[in-house]
Parts: sequence; structure tokens; C-alpha cells
Amino acid sequence: MQRFALLGAGFIGSVHARNLHLNKNIDFRVVYDVDGGRAQSIADEYGLTVAPTIDAVFDSGEIDAVLIASSTDMHAEHLRRAADAGVAALVEKPIDLDLVQATEVTRYVQASGIPAMVDFNRRFDRNHNELKRIIDGGEIGKVELIQMSGRGPSLPPLEYLRVSGGLMRDQTVHMFDLARWIVGTDPTHVFVTGSALSDAQVAEIGDIDTSVATLRFEDGTIAQIDSVRRTGYGYDERIEVMGSDGLVESGRQQVGAVSRYHGRHKTTDGLHEGWAQRVEATYATALDAFVNALETGSPLPNTLDDGLKAQAIAEAATRSLRTGQLEPIIYVQ
Amino acid sequence: MQRFALLGAGFIGSVHARNLHLNKNIDFRVVYDVDGGRAQSIADEYGLTVAPTIDAVFDSGEIDAVLIASSTDMHAEHLRRAADAGVAALVEKPIDLDLVQATEVTRYVQASGIPAMVDFNRRFDRNHNELKRIIDGGEIGKVELIQMSGRGPSLPPLEYLRVSGGLMRDQTVHMFDLARWIVGTDPTHVFVTGSALSDAQVAEIGDIDTSVATLRFEDGTIAQIDSVRRTGYGYDERIEVMGSDGLVESGRQQVGAVSRYHGRHKTTDGLHEGWAQRVEATYATALDAFVNALETGSPLPNTLDDGLKAQAIAEAATRSLRTGQLEPIIYVQ
Amino acid sequence: MQRFALLGAGFIGSVHARNLHLNKNIDFRVVYDVDGGRAQSIADEYGLTVAPTIDAVFDSGEIDAVLIASSTDMHAEHLRRAADAGVAALVEKPIDLDLVQATEVTRYVQASGIPAMVDFNRRFDRNHNELKRIIDGGEIGKVELIQMSGRGPSLPPLEYLRVSGGLMRDQTVHMFDLARWIVGTDPTHVFVTGSALSDAQVAEIGDIDTSVATLRFEDGTIAQIDSVRRTGYGYDERIEVMGSDGLVESGRQQVGAVSRYHGRHKTTDGLHEGWAQRVEATYATALDAFVNALETGSPLPNTLDDGLKAQAIAEAATRSLRTGQLEPIIYVQ
Amino acid sequence: MQRFALLGAGFIGSVHARNLHLNKNIDFRVVYDVDGGRAQSIADEYGLTVAPTIDAVFDSGEIDAVLIASSTDMHAEHLRRAADAGVAALVEKPIDLDLVQATEVTRYVQASGIPAMVDFNRRFDRNHNELKRIIDGGEIGKVELIQMSGRGPSLPPLEYLRVSGGLMRDQTVHMFDLARWIVGTDPTHVFVTGSALSDAQVAEIGDIDTSVATLRFEDGTIAQIDSVRRTGYGYDERIEVMGSDGLVESGRQQVGAVSRYHGRHKTTDGLHEGWAQRVEATYATALDAFVNALETGSPLPNTLDDGLKAQAIAEAATRSLRTGQLEPIIYVQ
Repeated sequence: MQRFALLGAGFIGSVHARNLHLNKNIDFRVVYDVDGGRAQSIADEYGLTVAPTIDAVFDSGEIDAVLIASSTDMHAEHLRRAADAGVAALVEKPIDLDLVQATEVTRYVQASGIPAMVDFNRRFDRNHNELKRIIDGGEIGKVELIQMSGRGPSLPPLEYLRVSGGLMRDQTVHMFDLARWIVGTDPTHVFVTGSALSDAQVAEIGDIDTSVATLRFEDGTIAQIDSVRRTGYGYDERIEVMGSDGLVESGRQQVGAVSRYHGRHKTTDGLHEGWAQRVEATYATALDAFVNALETGSPLPNTLDDGLKAQAIAEAATRSLRTGQLEPIIYVQ
Repeated sequence: MQRFALLGAGFIGSVHARNLHLNKNIDFRVVYDVDGGRAQSIADEYGLTVAPTIDAVFDSGEIDAVLIASSTDMHAEHLRRAADAGVAALVEKPIDLDLVQATEVTRYVQASGIPAMVDFNRRFDRNHNELKRIIDGGEIGKVELIQMSGRGPSLPPLEYLRVSGGLMRDQTVHMFDLARWIVGTDPTHVFVTGSALSDAQVAEIGDIDTSVATLRFEDGTIAQIDSVRRTGYGYDERIEVMGSDGLVESGRQQVGAVSRYHGRHKTTDGLHEGWAQRVEATYATALDAFVNALETGSPLPNTLDDGLKAQAIAEAATRSLRTGQLEPIIYVQ
Repeated sequence: MQRFALLGAGFIGSVHARNLHLNKNIDFRVVYDVDGGRAQSIADEYGLTVAPTIDAVFDSGEIDAVLIASSTDMHAEHLRRAADAGVAALVEKPIDLDLVQATEVTRYVQASGIPAMVDFNRRFDRNHNELKRIIDGGEIGKVELIQMSGRGPSLPPLEYLRVSGGLMRDQTVHMFDLARWIVGTDPTHVFVTGSALSDAQVAEIGDIDTSVATLRFEDGTIAQIDSVRRTGYGYDERIEVMGSDGLVESGRQQVGAVSRYHGRHKTTDGLHEGWAQRVEATYATALDAFVNALETGSPLPNTLDDGLKAQAIAEAATRSLRTGQLEPIIYVQ
Repeated sequence: MQRFALLGAGFIGSVHARNLHLNKNIDFRVVYDVDGGRAQSIADEYGLTVAPTIDAVFDSGEIDAVLIASSTDMHAEHLRRAADAGVAALVEKPIDLDLVQATEVTRYVQASGIPAMVDFNRRFDRNHNELKRIIDGGEIGKVELIQMSGRGPSLPPLEYLRVSGGLMRDQTVHMFDLARWIVGTDPTHVFVTGSALSDAQVAEIGDIDTSVATLRFEDGTIAQIDSVRRTGYGYDERIEVMGSDGLVESGRQQVGAVSRYHGRHKTTDGLHEGWAQRVEATYATALDAFVNALETGSPLPNTLDDGLKAQAIAEAATRSLRTGQLEPIIYVQ
């Protein structure tokens, strides 16, 4: 039984809170947020203690692990605190928007020896996982060509976009991680082109909302990733992997199985309204995998280094947007 | 090369004419219709001779086979003429609406020794054929439960319905034949219930437009068949067969592979507009199978006896509609 | 906040226990089972009191509602106890296998005035619900023809079958309820034929494992329902409703959205392993609807009378199996 | 009625021959091939005259149009002959592998005033056409992101690859044309990366068999195109277009509608065996569109200039493969 504290009680914090409560191997005890009212509300729902300060979380000595769902600019600080306290950490991506600082904190945490994992929750999606299992089982031979789409339903608020680090670092980074995970090696080069099509203000803040990225791997494998902020038709995520001996696809996920036939058309349920509905179950699965690793002492399913590598790809991708060239990806040591 | 005459130049005759023209093993020579103008129009299109009388078709001595697509009440007479002339015959169903007369002409034709086949074209549908191949290959074990739908898009003209023999003899008979073909034995009992829902005039002429039939086979296998005259959403035909070791389905056939995602729905192409569009290709395949049997001397894929048996089921089905009981099926000897 | 006791701590009881625990409007307090050890195990998991006797459940005065998941032969007795105690009741189907006794207890409960509902959980399936919403919204016009399949993956133990009341009363009864719910009126006649195909012992105990039922409604609407105990390919449930203006289908539900293309085939995820996996979510939804009705005082989504009517159809269906006739359905007053 | 000659009697010539024969507005008269035996074989099948020389085709004065299906290196010469003879021409792509020479012959033909069209047959695919109709009807708003796949089942013979001009000019050029057609404007830049993965000999001849291309349009629209020589699972072609108001897809086309459920999987028919099976119908439709334009004097559905533009994109794409940069596309004037 792992005793947990939750740092951050915003939207994603409340998703995590429910999963922390339901997990049978977790003793969910404490919640902290800079906004005490938000923390109290979650504490009331699940019978928790509200920590008045971040110090109070770690000084109690009654916590085995923290789930860091605080604002992005606090991730690095909270990781250091966990390392200092010898407490395991599951952190929302990114480690830090600045790759240099993300690297520094990663090395600091690694030196401390605490178990630490970035919450790349999409790796835990039921269908993506099945796709990975099929590939690893050799059913499609050697991976040769990947096609991935990650498309959100509507433009997030501009205030969010301004601090997001841009499309590559904020959204496509999930797909960069999945590409590494699927292929099993690190891509060496990336090319990206993008446009701001949904709203003129996106261009004004120097960002894009529609893009196509191409990754190259050492052995000639190629991955193509499109990212979109606003589809208008729901949350659209799809992975397709062609190998030397077949193709496997984790397809678009429709909400239901109801079909209608009228006149000349068949109409069925469409996609999930947003990413939250689509990937909801993955947070519980990722958390469960983290806790199982803690309980059994087995290796974590992913590490802070995975976080750094996905960020390194996002950096090169952002550079490619500017240069119009296939850019080498520079992984930090 | 088989020299063919076509008897009947109406709608279905014109479908056959095109297939007779395109088939490489057929020398399509003559067309006959009581309406000489209709015959001439087809003759002009394919470079044929118009036979002025039915005698002229058979007396010429230049014909190896006839395709009988004349009006239903002429089928028996034309079959006898073919038997007398020693010419092979492919006849549209039914042999005759009256089962006793159908039996008589069948025996007469069989005594003559000519090859004769009822054009149960649905057996030649690409997908139904594949379903049959899978079942015969043992992939789903022993057949236990069949579900079939045959649903037309709109009510045929009342003049047609008045002479059609009723829903069971006119439309469901195709499915009765398919059920025998799939199971490989003859059903022993049938129960049917039906309603007239699309138009009050259907009830007035003593017919129904919506029905569910249940067939029982000696070994306990059960088949369910629904028949509908008017769907409003196109032509809907579907066969599903459950066996002791799996299920196989020849599914609804959508016209195309175009999908649209808008808001909360996905919209795709619907079904074929009518049966003619849906089963068009089966006429050519059935004709080809008939000609191949003539050319090679191999057994015909189906015979007049198959026609009689499907009609016998339709007779018992019509009786069940009146009695509300599971009726035994009486096959003629 | 409704204070609940759970009666019955077997397999289905443990499913209910989890839902009682998670529901925010429920204060889950007490569990009772004739097997005290089973009750204790659930009590430990959710922090409950174990009631040593059935009296202890009702005498405490601290319970607003009971969920009756005890063995079928105890349902009637537990319903009477709830009525006597003035406590609301949600009861697993059937009320009682004997329709006369089921009617008596229903009238007794109704006289007491307590809210009481049969847990016809399939009405709460997300897709069936959407189908119902579409029909009620008039999108397919007047309902004319229904096709339903309910097929279990494997034969239940013979000990279970012996006390189940037979296929119609045990399994098809769910579909009889759904048919009434979809059409909005009560069927007047039923015809059924069935076979024992999966295991010779099924016939020995006088039961069947494969059947096709046909229901007729006053206005000519027809419903066809097939029921199977053993598919070999998972749990297969499907509802299709044709109306005067289109068709709506709550289709087969595949477990996932992973597809593979190899050689000449595409392979995708199949169906759920069993009914428990397929309908799991419906229990929580049904419970939620029950509690909401208690909290708001609004009408229950279904009542004991719905249970009686579905059972009355099952009785006539069982009779039809013997007579081979379309049987009138006799609803008790 | 247009009197036609067919130039070239190889594999694709024989496909065209059948369509020329079946088209009701075509009087198919003459066939020519450098290999007289091949020409004779087609002449025998359709009752044609074999032209002994190319001069004989054009000097007869009895021809209104030619279908040029000769070897690629003869296309330009045959186009010039048609222009000199004042005979309409439908030519297989490419006009000439050398873009400069293709441009010269295009200008020469245009100066002659004859109607001339490149046979970009994929524009005439039923589903791609429906996709185009939906987009042009404004149903998905402004086009923003396109994803296309064109993947062949197996590596063509190396002798063919050696003279093909490389993957971009030979195969991807079809998709470049479709991208222009869908968007309605010309892309300005292209980036491509590719690998030789199926066979070491592909790299030895300086070609690739797996690639991802990205196109940019003036208004920010982006298209992604992957091309593969060897899938191992059949011919895979797919187009997906996201607009500001929805998405439309011309999906993978499965051969049939047969499904099987066994154990934990559903298996359906896979894709067409090769491109010939998949796009067979498009040749007849394209030919029909060409003939209709000749008969009615309406504009041709596509022109030699469309051929030049698709080739210009392929040239820039081939350059990008070398430079690793987003390359400007230089359209000839």
C-alpha cells in the first residue's frame, strides 16, 4: 500500500484524485494546491488532509509517493522536493518547458535514486497498447512506416497557448514519445511544416495550429505525425504502423455502436468530444502501472529520460519549422 | 461456344441481354418477345435476329440454349418448348406459380434430358458465395442458427403484387432457396407471421409487406428470415450463420467507402438504391456458371428440383400465415 | 443521500457492491448474505457493517433502500420484508420464477407504497438507450420490424440451468422486456421454436440452448428474437429496429479498435468475452437512475409490473415451444 | 460516335481495349503495337483492324481519336503524330519522363488545337469523386489538411524500376495530381524523405520504396502523402481531407463484406490484391468522360497542363530527397 500526496488540484488534478482514490494499492492521504479552496474541495470528496504548504507535504514523513499535477512551471521544483524527501514521483509532462533545466532536474532526481516517471498516459491506452503488443510479437515484421494523428476538437484559450511552449512541445510531444516507444529506438532527424489556420491570433503569438511532422530513424524507418488544434468534429487520435509483413492500426474511436440508415446514408456515432473523454481511462492505467512498479520493485514503464528525449525531438521540430530543413535531433547526455 | 436465344425483352430481359453479349462462351443470336418493338430494340443494340414467333426460335435449329425471361405465366410453356426442341434452358424463377403445374413441367423437362436450371442468382453473389465456401470449409463447425434479411426499398406496383403470388412465393422464396443451399439439407417445418404496414391496399389484395419466417431442419438447425417490401433506406440483404465454432456474415453492402465526420456524427454511404443495383453482377455470374456446365458437361449448379423445393417451402409458409402454426413442408415427389 | 443495504454477496452482489460504493448519492452501509464469510469479504473492502440476520438489516431503522441480489428463490421474501419495513427496493430479475407468486408479491409491495424496481439493466446500456432516444424522437417513423440477438458465450453449469426456469424465463426475458420498452406497447402473441444443440444434457433436463422467438403487437409490428447459450465467439447482443422511415441499430460491440491487415484479410478485435464484461457499465447506470428517482421523487424508470409483463411473455413463449403455435400472451391483472 | 485507334497492346493496352469495346459512344476500329502479335490478339478479340505501321493509323483518315498506351518513351512521339493528324488524344501518364521534353510536346499539341488529356484515372474513382463532390459542395468548409496513402502490394520488377524515373515520378505523381485536384490550387513547396527497405537492389539503382512527402499550399493548407512499393497486404489507397468544418475520407477499400467471428477476433475481407483490381473501373469512367467531352465539345476533365504540373511537383520532390529541404516547386510556363 503506497501512501500518496497529490500536488495540484486543478482540472487534471481532479482526474488524478479520483484514480488515486479508486486504486486498491494506494492509500490516498494528502492534497496540496496553491489555491487552498481547490485543495479543500478535493479533500472533502475523498476524505483527505489538505497540506497548508508544500513543506507540509514532504515534512510529514507519512508519504511514499507524490503525483505532480501542479502548473508546468512548478514541475521541476516539486520533483526536486520529492528527490530531497526520498519520495517517489509521477509527474505530468513536461518535466520543464526549458530542455536545459529539464535535463538538470532529471539528473538531480536520478542522483537521488527515487523512482520517477513522466505520465505519458497515451502509452497506456488500451488500443495503443494492443498495437504495441502486436508489433512486439513480430506479427507485422519489421516496422517501416508509421502514420499518426493527434487532433484536438477546439482551440485552447490563448492564455494557455501563450505559456504552452508551442504546438510541438505541448501537443505533438505525446506523439514523439509514442513513435519512440513503438519503434524501440530514437529518431535521428525531424522535419515539420505548420500553419495557423483556425484563428489569426495563433499566428500573432508565433504559434501554429495545424502541422505535419516527419521523423527518420537510423534504419530508414519513417514516421509521419499530424497535429491539429481544432477539428470541429471531436478528438481524433489514430496510429497506423506498416511493417515488412502487414499493417496494424489503432483506429479512430467512435463513442458508440449505434447506426442509422436513412435514405442514401448511414450515420453512426462520431468521435469523443475531447481528449479528456478519449483518454480518461489511460490515467488510471498509467497510475496503476506506476504503483505496481513501486510495490514490486520492477522497472518503471517509462522514466524521466523518456521525457527528455521526447522534448529533444520537440526542440528539433520547432527548429525545423523555422529552417524548413530536415533537422538532426540532439539528445542530451 | 453456345448459341443462345433470349425469350423476353422486358426489364430483366435487357439485363440478361447485356450479359449474353459480354460472355465469351456465348454466341448470342436471337431475341423474342410478344412485344416485337421491345425485341427489336435489344436486337439493334447487340446485333441480333428478332424471332417473329416462338416457333421461329426453336425451329431454326441454330440454337443450343434459351434464357427464359418471359412473363411468369409463360415460363412453363417455354420450358416445354425447349424440352421438345432439345435445347438447354435457364429459367427465371418461378417455374410456375402453381406448384402442381410447376412439378408437371419439371418432370416433363427432366424426361426430355435437356439441361435446365432455375436462375437463383443470389447463390452467385460474391459475398454469399464466400460465406458458403467458409461454411463448407468447416470454419464455423456445424451450422446451428441462420439469420437472413431480404428487404426491398419500396412497394412494387399493385398490378405486380396482384399477380405475384404473395410475399412468400415472390420474394421470400429467394431466401428459402438460400437457406437450403447453406444448410445442405431441406427444412421440415416453417412458421410465418406477417403484416401489411406500408399501404392499406396491400391488405386489401390479401397480401403482406413485412414478415418474419422461421424454418426448422431435421437436426435442430433453425433459420430466421425477415422479408420487407418497403424499407425507405435502399435494398437491404444480409445473411448471418452461426455454427458450433463461430459465426460468418455476408453483411449489408454499402455503396461506397466515403465517410464524413461532422460535429458528433460520422456519415457514410448507405445501401444500394434497389435490388437491381445490388445483385446486378450475380446475373452474369449465374449465366457464366450455366454456360460452363453446358460447355464442360459438368453438373448444373442448381436444377428445376431446387426451384420446386423452394416453392414447396413458400407454399407451407403461406399456409402458416393463415393457421398461425408451425407447418410441415410437403415436398413433391 | 440514500442509505443502502445490499442483500446477497455472490458474483452479482459484488458487482453491485462496487457501484453502491462509487455512487455519490449513496451511503452504502450494510451487507447481508446467508454465507457470512462472503458478506464479510465485501464489508472489508468497502468499510461496511455485516448484518448477522435479515432481521438485523431491516430492524436497524438506518436503511432507506435495499438492493436485492440474493438467490432467486429469496427475491419474493426480501421484497416483502422491504415492503414491511417501508424501505425502497431494487431487485434483480425475476421477481419470482412462479408467475402467480411473482404477481402476489408485486401486489403486496404495491399496496405498501414503497418504490420498487426490477433491475432490467439492459435498458440502461449506452447504445440501447441511444437507439431508444432516436426512435422516440421520431427519426425512423413508426416501428415496424425488430430484430434482436442475445447470445451467451458458453453453456452455464447444468446445476444453474436446472433451477433457471428454462431459456425463455432466464435469458430471453431480457429481450422480451426490451421489445416492450422499444415499441411502447405490449405484444399480444408469441411463437418460439428451439433446439438443444450444444450439449445432450440440455435436452435431458428439458431445456433448449438455441431458439428463435417471434412477437406480434396489436398494430402489426413484429419482433424477432434469437437466443443462444453458447456462441464460442464471445457475448453477442444486437438490436435492430426498422421503422416506416429508416432503420436504427445498436450493433455488435467489439472490444477495441485495433485492426490488422495481413495477406488477404483484415482482423480486428472481437466481442466481449462474456455478458458480465459487455453489460458491466449498465448496472451502475441502472442503480444511478433508481437513486435519482428516490432523491427527486420522480417516477421509477421501470417497475415490478414491467417485471411481471416480461415474465408473462416468457410463460407464453414456453407454452409455444410445446404447442408449435402462435400463443396469445396472458397478462395478469 | 468517335472512331478510335489504340496505340499499345500490352497489359494496360488490353484493359483499355475492353473499355473501348464496351463504350457505346466509341467505334473501336484499329489497334497498333510494335509487337504485331500482341496487336493481332486484341484485334481478334474485338473485331479490329491491325495497323501495320504507326503511319497507317493516322493516314487512313478514318480515326477521330487515339488512346496512347504505348511505352513511356513513345508517348511524346505519338502525341505529336496525333497533333499533326488533327486527331484527339488520351495519353497514359507521363507525357514524357523528361519535364523539358514533356513541356515542348505539350506546347506543340496545344498549338495544334486537338483535344488532349492525360489519363489521371484515379480522379475518376467512384469514392475519390464523391469526396471531391463533398468538398466542392462546401460540406467540410475550407480544406486545411490532407492525408493520402498510395501503397502497392509488391515491388515491381527491377527492369521496370530502372526506367520508371523513380518513386516520385512513377507512383507518387498520381497523388500529386490528386492533391492539386482536391485543393483546387497548386502547391508551392514540397518536402520528401524516403528509404529503400524492401530490397537492397532498390538502393543500388538509386531509388526508394517507402516515402513520406509533405506539400504546402500558398494559403497554409498542408498535404501529407505516403508512398510504398511493397505492403504485403494488398493495394492500399486512402485519402482523408480535413476542413475547417469537418473531415471526409475515401477509405481503404475491402474486397467484400464477409465477416467471421471466431474466439477473440473478427476477420473480414482484406484489400484488393493489386492496383489493377482496385482501380479497374476508373479506366472506363475516365475514357467515358473523355469521349463525352469530345461528343459535346465541353472542356476536358483534365489536360496536358495538369500532367506537366504533377510532373513539376515530382521533380521538386525528387530534388528534396537529395537536399533534405523544403523545396520550391517550379512550374513551367
